[in-house]
Amino acid sequence: MPLAEIVGSLAAFLTTASFLPQAAKVLRTRETGAISLIMYSMFTAGVTLWGIYGVMTMQWSIIIANAVTVVLASIILGMKVRAVFADRASRPKT
Amino acid sequence: MPLAEIVGSLAAFLTTASFLPQAAKVLRTRETGAISLIMYSMFTAGVTLWGIYGVMTMQWSIIIANAVTVVLASIILGMKVRAVFADRASRPKT
Repeated sequence: MPLAEIVGSLAAFLTTASFLPQAAKVLRTRETGAISLIMYSMFTAGVTLWGIYGVMTMQWSIIIANAVTVVLASIILGMKVRAVFADRASRPKT
Repeated sequence: MPLAEIVGSLAAFLTTASFLPQAAKVLRTRETGAISLIMYSMFTAGVTLWGIYGVMTMQWSIIIANAVTVVLASIILGMKVRAVFADRASRPKT
């Protein structure tokens, strides 16, 4: 494997796998205060489009890496959305 | 521009730009409790390698997108590391 491909594969592994500890942390602690709702909305939409790009250009590595990231980012986004709604519901009505 | 290129460009814009609201939120609130240190360590290393991959394969779009993401991810990682050290320093010695 050429050196550039090794560097690219390691880069793809790290950026995709990095969302695993974040998803695990959010599921374990249920804490999402510092997590940006706008970030995960944009990011989840972005990796979904990367997956569609992979399908359109028939690149399996792009499809698989982004499918994994969509699942992990969706968990984080889902927990954040839940916390935002729970927070709104608990506020006193004025 | 072919449709796949439009989808890919939009995907690249969204995934890169998504770290801007997260970096802004962390800088504004100084709150990093829910942010995973392991995630941002792996992610920053990964996007740095993506940038190196871009240099090795001479792809300017990859170099620029990842250079922007490295800066934004480093801000978030830096604030998290600072908070971890501040937290350790404030703990009573036993």
